Amino acid sequence: MSQGGGAAAGNGVSPGNVPVCYYGQAGRVPAALERRVRAAELFLRCAACGLAVLAAALLGADRQTRVFFSIEKEARYTDMQSLAFLVIANGIAACYSLLQGARCLVSILTGGVLISRPMAWAIFSCDQVMAYFTISAVAVAMEAAMIGKYGNTQFQWMKTCHLYKRFCAQAGGAVACAVAASLNMVGISLVSAFNLFRLYGSGKGRK
Amino acid sequence: MSQGGGAAAGNGVSPGNVPVCYYGQAGRVPAALERRVRAAELFLRCAACGLAVLAAALLGADRQTRVFFSIEKEARYTDMQSLAFLVIANGIAACYSLLQGARCLVSILTGGVLISRPMAWAIFSCDQVMAYFTISAVAVAMEAAMIGKYGNTQFQWMKTCHLYKRFCAQAGGAVACAVAASLNMVGISLVSAFNLFRLYGSGKGRK
Repeated sequence: MSQGGGAAAGNGVSPGNVPVCYYGQAGRVPAALERRVRAAELFLRCAACGLAVLAAALLGADRQTRVFFSIEKEARYTDMQSLAFLVIANGIAACYSLLQGARCLVSILTGGVLISRPMAWAIFSCDQVMAYFTISAVAVAMEAAMIGKYGNTQFQWMKTCHLYKRFCAQAGGAVACAVAASLNMVGISLVSAFNLFRLYGSGKGRK
Repeated sequence: MSQGGGAAAGNGVSPGNVPVCYYGQAGRVPAALERRVRAAELFLRCAACGLAVLAAALLGADRQTRVFFSIEKEARYTDMQSLAFLVIANGIAACYSLLQGARCLVSILTGGVLISRPMAWAIFSCDQVMAYFTISAVAVAMEAAMIGKYGNTQFQWMKTCHLYKRFCAQAGGAVACAVAASLNMVGISLVSAFNLFRLYGSGKGRK
């Protein structure tokens, strides 16, 4: 059974001490839980997309020009590899979340329920990679931001944020959005783990 | 049913088009898969522990003294906050993996099978946090290592690895061990996700 409405889904887990599970019904959960999971997934994917776009846009538009002894210097996100990496990571995360959000919306509108293991494995794998990828990008950007703000006296890495205050403030806002986006990606990876591994409950699931 | 041997576990998923799932058997998988999952979990936890200890030890013992214009300077992991963070993260990961590995070993020796949802949720949550924590620590250390190796001309952050070659080489080895340890932690988080969410398959599981 590859599709099923909420009421039908409830049958496989009806109360009683000896529920009968028919072949192919593995992974089915109560209808109310199913609806909540799918709504949560759609919300998380939309939120992740919006936050990732906001983070990339804030960083992409971030620039500040200062004059030091008649020499003009402009700070941009491309001056720091970690910020460029964060922009790219958030761009990829936004595109990915948009596509997956569309799939999720179509699935809800058509009443389809994910049940095949290969598809669940594919979505789960991509979600896991994206979650670790975005978390890593945020961690890298935060490390560079910390060096920019506090410097490192031992290795003579000077503070730069007191020179480019507005640039650093806007970059900080972008990093905050990226943190929120990556937390959404973590939430999404939990939902897809639930959608995959419940197929391995008792019963055989669809091969 | 909170405990069960491999043979018993196989009963709940015996071949046939209409397998009967008794109350409390949710989350049961074929005996061969159950054994493989438990062996994989034990191996991953032991490997993560060993690699995290190695990474922390390599970094903790890493120091190099150089003389610049009669001034002696010593490079240590404490000079860079990101490396100190990596040592702490790997220390925590090693202790955690040791405790969880011991629990896993006891579970295998006594023939117990994890089935209660609260315990599976607790282990899953801790494993998820540790996986993201160690991945973040590695990402942060790699960013600092990149700045140390290549510098940043725009913000006048000078290269330091050509001054402390031996220190950087050993730190690189430690980061490689930390990367391997964090990948093990990711693998562990997948196993615990499997152990948790299969309890949400068809059938009601133990509340």
